Amino acid sequence: MRISELASRSGVSVPTIKYYLRTGLLAAGHPTAHNQAHYDESHLRRVRLIRVFVDVGGLTVLATREMLAAIDERRLSGERLLAVLDSTRAAARRRTLEGDLRTAAVRDVSALVSGRGWRVRPGSRAMQRLTDACVAARLLKMRELCAVLDAYAKAAACAAECDAVVARALAERVGVAPDQQRAALAEAVVVAAVLGNALTASLHAMAREDALTRLFAEWDG
Amino acid sequence: MRISELASRSGVSVPTIKYYLRTGLLAAGHPTAHNQAHYDESHLRRVRLIRVFVDVGGLTVLATREMLAAIDERRLSGERLLAVLDSTRAAARRRTLEGDLRTAAVRDVSALVSGRGWRVRPGSRAMQRLTDACVAARLLKMRELCAVLDAYAKAAACAAECDAVVARALAERVGVAPDQQRAALAEAVVVAAVLGNALTASLHAMAREDALTRLFAEWDG
Repeated sequence: MRISELASRSGVSVPTIKYYLRTGLLAAGHPTAHNQAHYDESHLRRVRLIRVFVDVGGLTVLATREMLAAIDERRLSGERLLAVLDSTRAAARRRTLEGDLRTAAVRDVSALVSGRGWRVRPGSRAMQRLTDACVAARLLKMRELCAVLDAYAKAAACAAECDAVVARALAERVGVAPDQQRAALAEAVVVAAVLGNALTASLHAMAREDALTRLFAEWDG
Repeated sequence: MRISELASRSGVSVPTIKYYLRTGLLAAGHPTAHNQAHYDESHLRRVRLIRVFVDVGGLTVLATREMLAAIDERRLSGERLLAVLDSTRAAARRRTLEGDLRTAAVRDVSALVSGRGWRVRPGSRAMQRLTDACVAARLLKMRELCAVLDAYAKAAACAAECDAVVARALAERVGVAPDQQRAALAEAVVVAAVLGNALTASLHAMAREDALTRLFAEWDG
């Protein structure tokens, strides 16, 4: 396919694909006549992958390149893969992904929120980020999305319950004058959130390492 | 207390405290004779709080100042607090926290790992980050730490199970030649991890918003 078709099928603009080519994230196409290049399914797959890393994972170009290099290693060991996952820090960024997939993803998120009865402000960053992740999952044709989404949400609800327990405990511990009560409660909530994020992110990475180690053993066995 | 005592009781060095004073994160001490300043318990509390935001949350000075300003607002509404939490992105950073608290925190983490039977590489970044979070929790004198830690770990294990389900589904979907199988599996694992991080972080923030909204209602009622 030509670069324009690669762009339309991947949902990534031609200038962005050219940027991927320039920075070496994407391998050059096969040269044809008329000074053009031909791209195949492997290019399409790679563009979708880069999009997941950059748009959803918030990885930098450098980190994305590292991830792709790890994937491309022929004899990649499970251990090396875990080390790459551990060393790559995803700084969250937001991009707007457009199109039909976005409409479907917005529907996924609304269904989840109403299904769980969550009282959340529509349009919060967290909700936008979740929508982006759902777009990516749809881009990857993950049929199991809704089931998995609900399972993740259940785990998140448990973590949030922990945050609330911590916030309550910290608030009860503060011995302050009544006129400072409100600030003390705010402090407890903020500390619980910061601590909760750090605990969740690190424990999730550790639990994943364990789950993947089992999965690798199964694949190798 | 003098600045040296504030430093030893908070575990933060005198130069760092002076930096907090210069950047306005910490209010000036009460002036005394001899061109010195006197600090009270509110300063100690504030230094500990800054440490949690910077060392554990990985917040920038700017984001920390915003958090502190929100806490200091007398009539802070729950809604405003949620907006601040939502807008502040924690870019994970690592600092080495030393001392007895660290030894105790290392013990907390080992107990957790062996209790759950997790196969994880000792010294991974995730484990270091978890240890930092435990140091902070101990700094804040959270007696419930071990119980809460295990509850967070249980939620993380559920999320990691979801990652494995996604990795397995993505790997099964890839129709590739046997010699590319390994790269395809690696790709599935990396995509599942990136997606899993984004889903967990956003869903956790949304579930927390719901949990805190209920907590605010309880406190106000």
